Amino acid sequence: MTPNSRAPDAPGTDLMARRARLLGPNVPTFYDDPVHVVRGEGVWLWDAAGRRYLDCYNNVPHVGHCHPKVVEAIARQAGLLNTHTRYLHEGILEYGERLVARLGHDLQQIIMVCTGSEANDIALRMAQAVTGHTGVIATDNTYHGNTAAVSHLSTRRPPIGGYPSHVRRVPAPDGLLPLGGSVQAQPVAFAANVSRAIEELQAAGHGFAGLMLCPVFANEGMPDVGPGFLAPTVEVVRRAGGLILCDEVQPGFGRTGSHFWGHEWLGFAPDVVTMGKPIGNGHPVAAVVTRPDVMAAFRTAFGYFNTFGGNPVSCAAALAVLEVIEEEGLVQNAHDVGAYTLRLMKGLRHPLIHDVRGLGLFFAVEFAQGGRAAPEFCGQVVERMRQRGVLLGRVGRQQHILKLRPPMPFSRENADLAIGTLAEVLAEMDVHV
Amino acid sequence: MTPNSRAPDAPGTDLMARRARLLGPNVPTFYDDPVHVVRGEGVWLWDAAGRRYLDCYNNVPHVGHCHPKVVEAIARQAGLLNTHTRYLHEGILEYGERLVARLGHDLQQIIMVCTGSEANDIALRMAQAVTGHTGVIATDNTYHGNTAAVSHLSTRRPPIGGYPSHVRRVPAPDGLLPLGGSVQAQPVAFAANVSRAIEELQAAGHGFAGLMLCPVFANEGMPDVGPGFLAPTVEVVRRAGGLILCDEVQPGFGRTGSHFWGHEWLGFAPDVVTMGKPIGNGHPVAAVVTRPDVMAAFRTAFGYFNTFGGNPVSCAAALAVLEVIEEEGLVQNAHDVGAYTLRLMKGLRHPLIHDVRGLGLFFAVEFAQGGRAAPEFCGQVVERMRQRGVLLGRVGRQQHILKLRPPMPFSRENADLAIGTLAEVLAEMDVHV
Repeated sequence: MTPNSRAPDAPGTDLMARRARLLGPNVPTFYDDPVHVVRGEGVWLWDAAGRRYLDCYNNVPHVGHCHPKVVEAIARQAGLLNTHTRYLHEGILEYGERLVARLGHDLQQIIMVCTGSEANDIALRMAQAVTGHTGVIATDNTYHGNTAAVSHLSTRRPPIGGYPSHVRRVPAPDGLLPLGGSVQAQPVAFAANVSRAIEELQAAGHGFAGLMLCPVFANEGMPDVGPGFLAPTVEVVRRAGGLILCDEVQPGFGRTGSHFWGHEWLGFAPDVVTMGKPIGNGHPVAAVVTRPDVMAAFRTAFGYFNTFGGNPVSCAAALAVLEVIEEEGLVQNAHDVGAYTLRLMKGLRHPLIHDVRGLGLFFAVEFAQGGRAAPEFCGQVVERMRQRGVLLGRVGRQQHILKLRPPMPFSRENADLAIGTLAEVLAEMDVHV
Repeated sequence: MTPNSRAPDAPGTDLMARRARLLGPNVPTFYDDPVHVVRGEGVWLWDAAGRRYLDCYNNVPHVGHCHPKVVEAIARQAGLLNTHTRYLHEGILEYGERLVARLGHDLQQIIMVCTGSEANDIALRMAQAVTGHTGVIATDNTYHGNTAAVSHLSTRRPPIGGYPSHVRRVPAPDGLLPLGGSVQAQPVAFAANVSRAIEELQAAGHGFAGLMLCPVFANEGMPDVGPGFLAPTVEVVRRAGGLILCDEVQPGFGRTGSHFWGHEWLGFAPDVVTMGKPIGNGHPVAAVVTRPDVMAAFRTAFGYFNTFGGNPVSCAAALAVLEVIEEEGLVQNAHDVGAYTLRLMKGLRHPLIHDVRGLGLFFAVEFAQGGRAAPEFCGQVVERMRQRGVLLGRVGRQQHILKLRPPMPFSRENADLAIGTLAEVLAEMDVHV
């Protein structure tokens, strides 16, 4: 179904017109025929016509859409008190102490904010405060948020006046064309590029403040990296006196199934960890966790206060999420159902499947033909899945990688439905190559 | 009471130690003896010992702490659906249409975000997108948020590497030392400084993108400006092709009593309006509203999406706030009770009172001695008021201005209590000058 094929009186048409009028041009929606959602519960979304969709994409409702325990925590605290952290309140302490206890080393201090963008914006300044330098590095196929400062690490369009010279973007690890020519050569090749970028920043007079990355390279299409992948890079960064700024917005809170944090799975100790999306199950909460020495440097160099950050309602929501993860064994579920789902996915057969990868409840299917990315095919798969009631997305430099990242209570039955439907879609899209 | 005078086992001591351990150094609190809040309702806050405080400071709980209608809206929508705007949902449309209808001219398109900082960060980029330039101007005694980009307009400490050269800070209007030597000369003197800053930005090759300001100069201590004050400045900005970026985080939503927005009171038409704090009564919501041509320029130049921004729960909270303002006649209340309160305040007698100003439910008492700001005296007033159960704050270049900015349902009885207590405190602080 193309956008033009929708009947003029189809549900959603009026909403699309109102959106265009109110929100302006170039506001992204999912799918040629965007879903008009009205209700969510667990792994399910319902549209205005009462149709049910299996949500295999949204990591924000981490413990499930509208989890009753989180809703109850928000409602209770919103009715009791919601104010800023210039007063004393136990909420931020209780939550913050529980959260940093989940980090296995010296990351013991926290700033609570409202969005992952705000968290990463602070992380950059922490690196600047510690090093006294401004030069930062990220991959060339990533996203770390939407403030002016972090958008320089993310945007696909050059900002007004061009990319600032204190930002260097290094080639991302890649599933189709690995750096250095092979999956084996990729870790050292990635580190070598980081090393070169550091030298460029130093030569340009910016100096080197830090490297920001997602430890599972989620926006890069979750290429085939594994424990130890970053070891040479971390060594390069440390030797140059820079900080590792670890964006856990996607892998954090147990999604990988094996560890609570992506960096634990990869096996390195970041200097700063940022968290967002899943932390409050959709309530606008985010956080920066770091070592006391980094925090002290930041708080000495910058005055920082966030009106909504760490308020009692946000903390109640986030605390409920932590408790549900524990009570419902959702990390173990991500491990078990993740492994089950990946087995089903590895059984998929189609000539355009280049690779199938998974890590807990995070999966990628890379489509290529003759060694070249197949973004159109991938887009068609996404649209056909949506038509059949299964919501997923795509990612990667050329948007040729299917991305599945369902809420954490995803079950074997959900996996059967999702991957069974994917098999049907792939079967009807069989092409002769 | 000084910080050292608190008994070691006083309530809050343990919380302060836990805060220091978890949040690090230099985290601001209000009052020498910060209030340990546990409950809020209307204009009241309660501490852990059950003591009640009259809240004369917090504008975030705009329609009153824990307003039942807002709490109910949040709870209901959180239990139904909370997801991002890449799906279609009526919430953002219903709210956005209602909100822009409150703006009397061509500001008809909106981006919803989570914090005023995010809103101002976008406003700066809108000015850049429209003009193709990066130079921005703000006053030298203001605050527009905490992202890296907007903190350059705000911070009292120079950022790492110094203030960026594309930012110019012009002297703020002042109550004690008016620009140009008199209150009458101040509008033209302010505009002349803006004009000079524009020339400097142009000479430096940055060009001029826009001027960001709060229309009541709230952080500047709400100096004695009035309708028409900005007319010469607006003319200067327009002639140079720049945008007026109007930060309504404090005056917006009817606080001035006479108008729904501060810029309406001052009588000018901004190109971009940003909103924060009171918009969701404490729920993390914020917004940028602008003309379609500005929005189109921004959305063409920058890809922008905010995961939490405009989600159904945020929109439900914000819609409830708009409805309560209307249903309870809170703008009229700000007008009536504001005028009543100001009359009481004008009756205060103390040799250090230099000026008493008010605008709706927003008041300033400027303390000076021999023409010089009296910040220590002002600080003592704040502490003594807190000890007597009335919460207020201070502001201004030298923190010598008492700031009262209570929730909007503030009543005459509340005013009697607040200003009566202030009269007592001033009486006991009588000094011979």
